[in-house]
Amino acid sequence: MQLAMISDQIIPYTDLDPAYLDRGTFFGDGVYEVIRSYNSNIFALDDHLERFDNSLKQIKIPNIDIKLLGQKIMTAFDKADIPNAKIYFHITRGSEPRKHAATESLKPNFFMTITDLPDDSAAKTNGIAVCTCPDLRWKRCDIKSLNLLPNVLARIEAEEKGCDEAIFVDENGLITEGAGSSFFGVFGNTLQTAPLTANILPSVTRKYVIKAAKILQMNIAEQSLTPQHGAIPDELFLAITTKDIVPVVKFDSHSISNDKPGPKTKSLIETFQTFVAKTA
Amino acid sequence: MQLAMISDQIIPYTDLDPAYLDRGTFFGDGVYEVIRSYNSNIFALDDHLERFDNSLKQIKIPNIDIKLLGQKIMTAFDKADIPNAKIYFHITRGSEPRKHAATESLKPNFFMTITDLPDDSAAKTNGIAVCTCPDLRWKRCDIKSLNLLPNVLARIEAEEKGCDEAIFVDENGLITEGAGSSFFGVFGNTLQTAPLTANILPSVTRKYVIKAAKILQMNIAEQSLTPQHGAIPDELFLAITTKDIVPVVKFDSHSISNDKPGPKTKSLIETFQTFVAKTA
Repeated sequence: MQLAMISDQIIPYTDLDPAYLDRGTFFGDGVYEVIRSYNSNIFALDDHLERFDNSLKQIKIPNIDIKLLGQKIMTAFDKADIPNAKIYFHITRGSEPRKHAATESLKPNFFMTITDLPDDSAAKTNGIAVCTCPDLRWKRCDIKSLNLLPNVLARIEAEEKGCDEAIFVDENGLITEGAGSSFFGVFGNTLQTAPLTANILPSVTRKYVIKAAKILQMNIAEQSLTPQHGAIPDELFLAITTKDIVPVVKFDSHSISNDKPGPKTKSLIETFQTFVAKTA
Repeated sequence: MQLAMISDQIIPYTDLDPAYLDRGTFFGDGVYEVIRSYNSNIFALDDHLERFDNSLKQIKIPNIDIKLLGQKIMTAFDKADIPNAKIYFHITRGSEPRKHAATESLKPNFFMTITDLPDDSAAKTNGIAVCTCPDLRWKRCDIKSLNLLPNVLARIEAEEKGCDEAIFVDENGLITEGAGSSFFGVFGNTLQTAPLTANILPSVTRKYVIKAAKILQMNIAEQSLTPQHGAIPDELFLAITTKDIVPVVKFDSHSISNDKPGPKTKSLIETFQTFVAKTA
């Protein structure tokens, strides 16, 4: 008789909950988004939905109604009634017995959580430490997929070194992005970050950071930084959906802007907040 | 209140089954093996367990007792009583609210299925068609991880072209392996396959294919093939745990060995069967 075993329990295969046959688990065959709210308003929902739609198309999960998905998110968000919430959701190709090429008519699985955002004021006030790490990821990091093992391994390594984030360096010696963030350097009045390619997630927060920099009349240089370059800027920071802008004060063993968040970073944080208010 | 949504159902976050918080789904943060039995005997169990142990170590999932795992597999296999069985199992880093770096004390999740192997005699007798596809995978394909989205996408593309397997070609124009198989060419009395590097899974079946080739007094060339090279060999075949050796008779649009499994491939299939018998 066909069997399954979960931990130490043996059960008939036919009794398996479909959650255990999710292609998301077998293959990471799905895509996801993380969105946040500020003071009971979801920030940049349309941007995230547009990116999600593109991720779905790239991995050929068809027939997802993005407008309906947006309504589902709003309904659940209203019900949760959490002013500063983290909204995570993913869609996988569906559940069925494991095989690489899925059955064509398979029904995709939707999963979402709406949880409290942890307080991040210390990171914003004091800045964080980051370290570099080889970029071992696949060649389509523009797709926000569930294949995140290299990101996990990099973050584990960073934590072992007492750092809060790992910054990926590709085989050409160029910084791509963080394991869960975009990476920015400030040189004088110029904001520098990697250009958008197949190796980088088109970060929604990145888009609004660049918008903020333009308002502050900074120059924008979409050119990759290098670890050597990364160690000598005036300021460094990360862009992350859940925390918007987080100052970096330690890059590998180098101090950045005297171990304190720099003035341009602070101005960008303030300007970013005006966008947040506008969504109210 | 913190919420979760599964398909169209909203539930309190605290009511979520841990299966939905598996790091295997969020990140593909786990490793797996596929083993088969022939006539009620599991083939090469120790080889698979050794590779699994190495995969676990590489992604830093600690404290898994591999000997105990082997006993669990044997117990469930005996209970299933399926002569020609496919044994799939994975271990993920565990279940907890989603965050990149896991809680250190997290208990890993074990999952296994023992199912009937589908009859593969047609593929063995007639051979199959394969097509090439860019290798977009991460840089540690020697780890048998749950990050398999590029493999899935390649297999979907192959099926759309009427092919049974996708053969990965890396950015240097070299063939690495199939989306779910190792790739071999026969040139005269020489068996050629890619050398084992971080870009290739150390296939257990590959090891026994090479053993069979040595018994048949063939020369072994561990050198990468190219698509140009792949199209002009005397014979081609794949090595896959569940099917051991599968002849390839079509490579992209090229006919191989007159659209029929070649004589060397047939001899290797026969010799491989002597190893299977020895495990009885």
